[in-house]
Amino acid sequence: MKAILTVADGMADRPVRELGWKTPLEAASKPVLDQIAKTGICGIIDPIAPGIPAGSDVATLAMLGYDPVKSYSGRGALEAVGSGLTVLSSDVGFRCNFATVNENLVVLDRRAGRIDNEDATKLAASLQKVRLPSSFKAEFLFKNTVQHRAALVLRGPKLSPAISDSDPETVGKKVLQVKPLDKSQEAKRTARILNTLMHQFRGVLKESPVNRRRAELRLQQANMILCRGAGTVPKIVTLHEQFGIKPACIAAVSLIKGVCKVAGMSLIDVRGATGTPQTDYSAKAKAAVHALTTHDFVFLHVKATDVASHDGALKLKVEVIERIDRMLGYVVDHVDADSTFLAVTADHTTSVATRNHEGDPVPVAIAGPYVRRDDVTEFGERTCAHGGLNRIRGVDLMLTMMSLMGKAKKFGS
Amino acid sequence: MKAILTVADGMADRPVRELGWKTPLEAASKPVLDQIAKTGICGIIDPIAPGIPAGSDVATLAMLGYDPVKSYSGRGALEAVGSGLTVLSSDVGFRCNFATVNENLVVLDRRAGRIDNEDATKLAASLQKVRLPSSFKAEFLFKNTVQHRAALVLRGPKLSPAISDSDPETVGKKVLQVKPLDKSQEAKRTARILNTLMHQFRGVLKESPVNRRRAELRLQQANMILCRGAGTVPKIVTLHEQFGIKPACIAAVSLIKGVCKVAGMSLIDVRGATGTPQTDYSAKAKAAVHALTTHDFVFLHVKATDVASHDGALKLKVEVIERIDRMLGYVVDHVDADSTFLAVTADHTTSVATRNHEGDPVPVAIAGPYVRRDDVTEFGERTCAHGGLNRIRGVDLMLTMMSLMGKAKKFGS
Repeated sequence: MKAILTVADGMADRPVRELGWKTPLEAASKPVLDQIAKTGICGIIDPIAPGIPAGSDVATLAMLGYDPVKSYSGRGALEAVGSGLTVLSSDVGFRCNFATVNENLVVLDRRAGRIDNEDATKLAASLQKVRLPSSFKAEFLFKNTVQHRAALVLRGPKLSPAISDSDPETVGKKVLQVKPLDKSQEAKRTARILNTLMHQFRGVLKESPVNRRRAELRLQQANMILCRGAGTVPKIVTLHEQFGIKPACIAAVSLIKGVCKVAGMSLIDVRGATGTPQTDYSAKAKAAVHALTTHDFVFLHVKATDVASHDGALKLKVEVIERIDRMLGYVVDHVDADSTFLAVTADHTTSVATRNHEGDPVPVAIAGPYVRRDDVTEFGERTCAHGGLNRIRGVDLMLTMMSLMGKAKKFGS
Repeated sequence: MKAILTVADGMADRPVRELGWKTPLEAASKPVLDQIAKTGICGIIDPIAPGIPAGSDVATLAMLGYDPVKSYSGRGALEAVGSGLTVLSSDVGFRCNFATVNENLVVLDRRAGRIDNEDATKLAASLQKVRLPSSFKAEFLFKNTVQHRAALVLRGPKLSPAISDSDPETVGKKVLQVKPLDKSQEAKRTARILNTLMHQFRGVLKESPVNRRRAELRLQQANMILCRGAGTVPKIVTLHEQFGIKPACIAAVSLIKGVCKVAGMSLIDVRGATGTPQTDYSAKAKAAVHALTTHDFVFLHVKATDVASHDGALKLKVEVIERIDRMLGYVVDHVDADSTFLAVTADHTTSVATRNHEGDPVPVAIAGPYVRRDDVTEFGERTCAHGGLNRIRGVDLMLTMMSLMGKAKKFGS
């Protein structure tokens, strides 16, 4: 038995006036999603618990069967792992941005004009020569990912993730001094190291020929690194250890890749998968089907629905859902229905109206051999609430699927 | 965004033969409740967990979003807070009754003939002159509330709520010696203090001119104070701290006021609100609507449904529900539907047949902007079970509402 779990980031929504009080999912033409709902068992899921808006990091941990509260240890390390950096259990990881600041360190653009990958890669290379003062007995790893995004890892003895962000998250505000968030020596030391490193980075970036050229081209200078989300790698057992499965992940964004890597999944890179609404849906579908030949569980993640929601782009969100539907059409047509479970859900609700993650539950449908097919005939936030799974939590989904696959361990005897 | 959460105490019930196997709620004419259900999202709530009959104290804590098991620390202190007494974190509070006992301290009437407020106030005043032996290094606060009801607070170092009641809760039984419930010095000391104080109170009451006059009028003498429900104030964060809201409470009974005060809510006194079936429903409705002008969350509590249930008064219970419906009619007509959520539920099931709190879930409906309206068209225990919220727990309700209001904090990032 094999399975593909498709998670459309932030796909769930609330009814909106512009769609005649339908949700984007309800308004979309989605014959394949409806077919999965119709032939499967449906329900609604609270990613964490009722009413709690979930971040994609904790929601994905939960949907993979990990207790989101116990297993979560900050986003930074997950991003770093997902970017391809090796993160040890004693390291502290961060999400970073190339940003534009003025002489007084006031942030002018948190994304340095959405700097292109080429310039970011050159600047990241120039930062490799930075050496922390030897008295710190610490080193760093730094890697740019997509556009202005990057990841940083601090390595050395006695580090702590209990430190604040340097990213003020608002244009017009000054870069923040990193501060310890508890009274430990480790937190004080880590804050001191990061402040020093940020200062060293600033020195290199300011003088970089890349930025001189950008200035000439009237592009925003990438003259500062902003850090946030200090975290450590979650101490979790892999999905293989827990269920004996061979799992793979198809995702474009570092965070999801990081979570899946930490869960011991193979990361499958797909050319054209960008984490944007313009991602190559067809390539992802093909990769998922192909991955099933060498793996028995595939986590297929699409970021685009969340991007459209955060931008308040209602029409785009509906279109993205329709593209996801066609992506799943390929999957349905190319897997063996007698030995494959297809599950579809969202990691959380993102409202196109509020442009935020919201605490409403998300719909789920699971089709496959011997599932207790219910009466739900359409895949939607409200139709699935009448499904046979009723209302479960994110952390329950993986076990539900493992049980269907015959991979769940009996408790008791 | 604003919200009014209406809780009708013990409104939920079981089907009864006399109503053609309908519940009182199902039998009542309740166009407004039905309208809220029809335009909103419905469900059923286990106040604590399935099958657990909830007290109003823990149920109200839960419905306000507090973990009922972790936050509950006995009823006495909540009653004392609700009565208007100041209760410090090191104090122990009690619910008290003025009672009638004979010379051998056998209870003849647990409510001293439901003594009127005037006599009770005079007697309470006479008790203020009592001084505990100075060796105890402790003092007390005592306040009568409605009729025979009163609250007591013990204050001093090293007190413990782990002591038994003096109230035998049955007529014909002797007043109980208060005993420590664990082996701590604190519990022993607190029991000793309370026994001494009860003895001192008895001395004052026996000789009171109020009781001499009551004897002449052949009224039951209020010649003993019975104590029960030793408790401390829950250590909880306020709703403002947790959600950034400005909450108000409209309730007549001390217990609910106490819970709401501890949760940091403004207590709004309403003339004519009595906690009985004869309460001024219209005044409460007006007060709730008015409170929304200065607060963004109003907890509107009606005790009457529970009173009728405990009395086994079926017809009265139906009538009270119909009055609550008219009360909500005023609310619906006077709030801005585009910016106000209206939620209705009960804190627990109270059966008119058994006259007890029962463990059956309670119905809930939430109407307001952007809710995922479902197919439920009537507000009832059984209709709401088909609603889009499915089955949640009491502790989930507040977060669900806060999420709708945009006040829930994201977990993860």
